[in-house]
Amino acid sequence: MGSHYDALLQHLNDIHNLRMAAAVLDWDRETTMPEGAAASRATQLSVLARLAHEKFVSERTAELLEKAEVELNGADYDSDEVSMVRIARRDYDEAVKLPAEFVAEMTRLTAMAHGEWAKAREAADFAAFRDTLKRIVDMKRQEAEYRGGGEHPYDALLREYEYGMTTAQVKEIFESHKPALVELIAAINEVKDRVSDAPLRQPFDIAKQREFARSVIKAYGFDFSRGMQAESIHPFCTHFSRNDVRITTRFDPNHLNPALFGMMHEAGHGLYEQGVAPELDGTILDSGTSLGVHESQSRLWENIVGRSKGFWKWALPLLRKAFPGQFDDVDLETFYRAINKVEPSFIRVEADEATYNLHIMVRFELEQALLVGDVRVEDLPEAWNAKFESYLGIVPPNDALGCLQDVHWSVGLFGYFPTYALGNLLSAQYYAQAVKECPEIPEQIEKGEFSTLLSWLNDKIHRHGRKLTADELTRRITGQSIQADDYIQYLKDKFGEVYSL
Amino acid sequence: MGSHYDALLQHLNDIHNLRMAAAVLDWDRETTMPEGAAASRATQLSVLARLAHEKFVSERTAELLEKAEVELNGADYDSDEVSMVRIARRDYDEAVKLPAEFVAEMTRLTAMAHGEWAKAREAADFAAFRDTLKRIVDMKRQEAEYRGGGEHPYDALLREYEYGMTTAQVKEIFESHKPALVELIAAINEVKDRVSDAPLRQPFDIAKQREFARSVIKAYGFDFSRGMQAESIHPFCTHFSRNDVRITTRFDPNHLNPALFGMMHEAGHGLYEQGVAPELDGTILDSGTSLGVHESQSRLWENIVGRSKGFWKWALPLLRKAFPGQFDDVDLETFYRAINKVEPSFIRVEADEATYNLHIMVRFELEQALLVGDVRVEDLPEAWNAKFESYLGIVPPNDALGCLQDVHWSVGLFGYFPTYALGNLLSAQYYAQAVKECPEIPEQIEKGEFSTLLSWLNDKIHRHGRKLTADELTRRITGQSIQADDYIQYLKDKFGEVYSL
Repeated sequence: MGSHYDALLQHLNDIHNLRMAAAVLDWDRETTMPEGAAASRATQLSVLARLAHEKFVSERTAELLEKAEVELNGADYDSDEVSMVRIARRDYDEAVKLPAEFVAEMTRLTAMAHGEWAKAREAADFAAFRDTLKRIVDMKRQEAEYRGGGEHPYDALLREYEYGMTTAQVKEIFESHKPALVELIAAINEVKDRVSDAPLRQPFDIAKQREFARSVIKAYGFDFSRGMQAESIHPFCTHFSRNDVRITTRFDPNHLNPALFGMMHEAGHGLYEQGVAPELDGTILDSGTSLGVHESQSRLWENIVGRSKGFWKWALPLLRKAFPGQFDDVDLETFYRAINKVEPSFIRVEADEATYNLHIMVRFELEQALLVGDVRVEDLPEAWNAKFESYLGIVPPNDALGCLQDVHWSVGLFGYFPTYALGNLLSAQYYAQAVKECPEIPEQIEKGEFSTLLSWLNDKIHRHGRKLTADELTRRITGQSIQADDYIQYLKDKFGEVYSL
Repeated sequence: MGSHYDALLQHLNDIHNLRMAAAVLDWDRETTMPEGAAASRATQLSVLARLAHEKFVSERTAELLEKAEVELNGADYDSDEVSMVRIARRDYDEAVKLPAEFVAEMTRLTAMAHGEWAKAREAADFAAFRDTLKRIVDMKRQEAEYRGGGEHPYDALLREYEYGMTTAQVKEIFESHKPALVELIAAINEVKDRVSDAPLRQPFDIAKQREFARSVIKAYGFDFSRGMQAESIHPFCTHFSRNDVRITTRFDPNHLNPALFGMMHEAGHGLYEQGVAPELDGTILDSGTSLGVHESQSRLWENIVGRSKGFWKWALPLLRKAFPGQFDDVDLETFYRAINKVEPSFIRVEADEATYNLHIMVRFELEQALLVGDVRVEDLPEAWNAKFESYLGIVPPNDALGCLQDVHWSVGLFGYFPTYALGNLLSAQYYAQAVKECPEIPEQIEKGEFSTLLSWLNDKIHRHGRKLTADELTRRITGQSIQADDYIQYLKDKFGEVYSL
């Protein structure tokens, strides 16, 4: 390749490495850093972010991009080179839209807002966060204007996390499966006593929890020579290279789920990052393509595999061995039902597969309403509770269990929530296709063999990194755009069996 | 302060924060990173180093420095502002001397050399490292030329680690105490059977070792809310802010010393960093002033305090509690002698207080000889063994125990070794002064109280960060430059008692 492209690549790689360094500092903050270091770490992170941003929106980037575009004119769309330039152009055009002072102001505001939100949530006191949230919503409205594009102001915010997806499309796909969810949950509610999760709520030694969960994700294919697992208050996955993927776990000494299914979930994200093509390592393409596709991988390994009966045919005997005496009386059917208990609840992150997307729809609709002014920030708790009751049939007793529960808004993440639901839909859509192409997968899972599934995901999704958009990827893999049919079918099949509907 | 200084400060702080980010990545590499990530981490570190270097040697630095110098002309030498500009000027003038290509070539060479050295040491095969070491010595000779200044080419290298110290001064101070060391060791050798370190060589539970050593450094004053301790193969101390100081430890399940005295040592470095004045936090002055002064702090807490009889009056009962049954028959005198056993040995890092500086003198003389060509690299093993025998009375059976033992030369660190010995001398010189000013210190140590000593060190040394040179500091504190008298007196007193000489 010519010298303009090489110069662009080197320039972008420098920026990428600054961002990866920031990611290491973030990881260290969440897993290791002493509390007294908070202020100095915030400074270090803001310097790295500013230097990376300045470098990226510089004249030099524009110049190198233009030259490389001319140089590569007519070359293969899928090639690393053309993809690199295309994605860099997309990122650049987006990044230059925001004035530096606006970015700095947003950084200051959200840095402060995060602490205020945490306190307000702890006290279940919405009023303590209200004025700050107002300022954030105002700034997000301003940001949507700066970013522009699309029919709805929300489009501009959504684009940051799910490029190529519009508000109208999300609305359509949400509407297309909401009735089925509501109907399914109602049917389950009629016979809710058929399932108990008591076996999962016992005292479990934490070292043994860690060992068992690690053995599961190792079997999935998570490569511990290119990744590692640590603890943090809020579980997450991060990466600094395809060869350096970190996941974290939260342990509950009296509940098996958070660590076990949490580690499967984060490992699903991790397998995506570990599977990016080596050629893309250290470049701006070295990452998952969208949050929705990312979440499809975590949900696939957590739920479609990890909460399947086939998986536990293999895993339950191992679990019995790991916790002697604690599962002796629990047969496969009972255990399978326990891990698939459905019950409308207040907290999104603890929601089951059937109710989860309804939690998202509440937020998706409120975010749009806040943005266009249909709901005022001061009326948010009321609006939240009304919508929550209409979708899930229950009313949060306080705002900590209601509109204050999630961190996202406090750190300025508007347009992010829908990707969780899109990920659920995609997980079923991709898995259905994988089984269509490799019908042996379910049988292999019953034997604790996951390599066919992982290879398929590597080949179809992971290796491309950021080269293809979520929609390009999904159409190439399944022949159609994202749809809810596979997910609804999956839920009906599973919960029909679990609840004998 | 005026706007030129503020602009300079902001500019330098950005560079400092890039370097601190690199330090976090280094820490992570040594304590956490999966092995597969080595190459990507090397790239990330080299990008951070290059960006920080480019920014520092830029025209902008020169311009801001000149303006700030004019602006601050006549202001107080000790003020933060004048000190900042003075030290930045010193660093800048040094940094611009090396051509960028030379720095890049040295980085490439030493990155490769480190692995070669590790293999050569493992195989005790000097020939496998010889040609690379030749290239390194050639480059260090070239570097000394670029840096210039001083009577001896070695001056230029020494300056990087011990600013203000010349080769001639080091030579004089080494010569001034070498005979006393040799004499002391010979006297001890006559009665070497009087001391046994057997009590320290038992199986010790690692979790208990960690807990006990942590309790000791906590008593010293190491602030765990502004620092933390982890494990690594080679123990070290690093910091990313005065509020974020990290130390590492290596545990031996059958030997108490490495973890216990190692943690005291690294905590000594850590207390220095935690004690830098808050006003200097996040600036280029936020660090210890020289390697010699740094080592004085680690050796003071490890040896002068940690290997004193007074300390163990307090600590031995606690050690007995921590390891029930393992020290019941070991009285204070026996234990005190055990931790102060003197015996010429091959490995520097395991050397006792009496022989340690002789290890350094061997390296100091060989480094100069290599640099000026008095010893050729191919003759190094022979030269090493001859010098080692003449100073320590024993000949290494192979080069892994001889000239291949230390990592320093492989990563290009020439001129670094002398600072270890200077640190030993300064530790005694500072401690003698501390006791002169606060005679209650020894009694307090017997009660496990260290705050008077720590406050004195904070006030006299730590808080200044890099503002004063080692010599400025030492003269202000003790009224004279570095000398060996206090150290020799300290050794004679201690080992006269330990060995009943």
